[in-house]
Amino acid sequence: MTAKQQLFVGIDGGGTKCKAIVVNNHGQILGHGVAGPANAFQHLTLAQQSIIDATVLALDDAGLSHMSLTSLVVGAGLAGVNIDASRQAMLNWQHPFAQFYLTTDMAIACLGAHQAEPGAIIICGTGSAGYAHNGIRELHLGGHGFAHGDICSGAWFGLRAVEQVLLSSDGFQPATQLQQCLFDQLKVANINQLIAKSAGQGAGFYGQLAKQVFFCAEQGDQLAMNIVEQGLSYFCQMVDALTDFQQGKIALIGGLVPLLTPHLPNRVKTVLSRPQRPPEYGAILFAQRQYVDEG
Amino acid sequence: MTAKQQLFVGIDGGGTKCKAIVVNNHGQILGHGVAGPANAFQHLTLAQQSIIDATVLALDDAGLSHMSLTSLVVGAGLAGVNIDASRQAMLNWQHPFAQFYLTTDMAIACLGAHQAEPGAIIICGTGSAGYAHNGIRELHLGGHGFAHGDICSGAWFGLRAVEQVLLSSDGFQPATQLQQCLFDQLKVANINQLIAKSAGQGAGFYGQLAKQVFFCAEQGDQLAMNIVEQGLSYFCQMVDALTDFQQGKIALIGGLVPLLTPHLPNRVKTVLSRPQRPPEYGAILFAQRQYVDEG
Repeated sequence: MTAKQQLFVGIDGGGTKCKAIVVNNHGQILGHGVAGPANAFQHLTLAQQSIIDATVLALDDAGLSHMSLTSLVVGAGLAGVNIDASRQAMLNWQHPFAQFYLTTDMAIACLGAHQAEPGAIIICGTGSAGYAHNGIRELHLGGHGFAHGDICSGAWFGLRAVEQVLLSSDGFQPATQLQQCLFDQLKVANINQLIAKSAGQGAGFYGQLAKQVFFCAEQGDQLAMNIVEQGLSYFCQMVDALTDFQQGKIALIGGLVPLLTPHLPNRVKTVLSRPQRPPEYGAILFAQRQYVDEG
Repeated sequence: MTAKQQLFVGIDGGGTKCKAIVVNNHGQILGHGVAGPANAFQHLTLAQQSIIDATVLALDDAGLSHMSLTSLVVGAGLAGVNIDASRQAMLNWQHPFAQFYLTTDMAIACLGAHQAEPGAIIICGTGSAGYAHNGIRELHLGGHGFAHGDICSGAWFGLRAVEQVLLSSDGFQPATQLQQCLFDQLKVANINQLIAKSAGQGAGFYGQLAKQVFFCAEQGDQLAMNIVEQGLSYFCQMVDALTDFQQGKIALIGGLVPLLTPHLPNRVKTVLSRPQRPPEYGAILFAQRQYVDEG
């Protein structure tokens, strides 16, 4: 098979789902597939199965069900392979593809966002993380997970909000309307029910509360304003570190972006950009570059 | 059976174990029993089974295996019954005892610590919470759980330490020896392994790191000193609130007490006391008072 006929698959594997696209060598997307979780650290064999499932679905979607997996060149950006042991385990996989090129979910998001030019990204959704590539080296910032990392993420805003509302309820500081906003969002009637509902919860639970924090901050709620200010301070530190590392723009990705953007100072806004292509397309660019390098 | 012959059982039910003592009506402890978890919020039927198991073991230990549960007057202080729904569910229990008097784990700890006199307690172990009884009313402070509450608990100190070490590793602040102290305690060699080991961990994991924070703070480590200062600030706020509420002493309970005490200001030290009796004995005092009131 010549390079002209080669099909490429781009994989974006995260903790909740795995996206695949199949692309011809003109860069045209022929089909999409979505399968289960593909975080290599959380569950290695499930991640491998999700990669295969998503690829098969993308081939079906492209009307290419007859193609063998052994003919495909796959680029995969996976959550969890920033952990050494998980990356090594994934590299040891006896995969069914012609080639399987592996990198992080952050790397492919950045490649896609900047069409493979040097640049940086900040992801702010339920979690948060920063990443930059200056053409030679890469820089990873944050993204260490809930509850000890991911500052300025949705989960972080929600956790801080519950913490502050409980401090108010104990009389350690004045109560504000943030309390009622959390009650409304969680459909609870009082502090007792808030405590019961928060017990043992993880990032997903707290992430749903982030928009209440921004809503209250915009109404002048002091506790919410303090939380937003603290989150933004970290966000701006991350922007500065990513800007020091490379000269390109910083693309923002994730559900929190519309909430955060209005609060950013102008000096930060000037270095921001919108992502040009999605992460799974970044995985295609990654695979093509590796394939050419090796060919 | 007259009051003179009545046997009382005191139950201290927590998230990891349930302690029982059986006491005669001179207040002499005749036997001890320890069984499984008895947090009414986390697992109601398990908590009920643990209460029965611990009671049977305490009767065995007292050489009273022949006694029927139906003859016993039980006082139980359980974790989780501060949540309305859990308290109500436990009150609906078709228990096998003559009487079953229910209150919180905090209430019996305070009754025991002050021999049923008005007073207050602060628990600082893996979790933290404050409680006071002024003879008429009670006050609950903190104790909302990991990771949104329990400030100044072992888990809170450990979580803050990991958070700060990760911020240093990303270059957002100077690194200190706290990093190596955490590495040593967790038997990891680098930040990558620290991140892997911290992923998805709960209060127990972080609680084991608290003593490293105090050790480093005592060596002048700036990050550790900041964390200790922040924890103590909350602790002193709690002391002030508990002191405002009642005139008695505040007994400190839990594994963090020896670490915290040297750092407390003198004005706080003067209102502190050592607990006189353990929580399960407080449960006896509670049961006896209820029994007399009803008799």
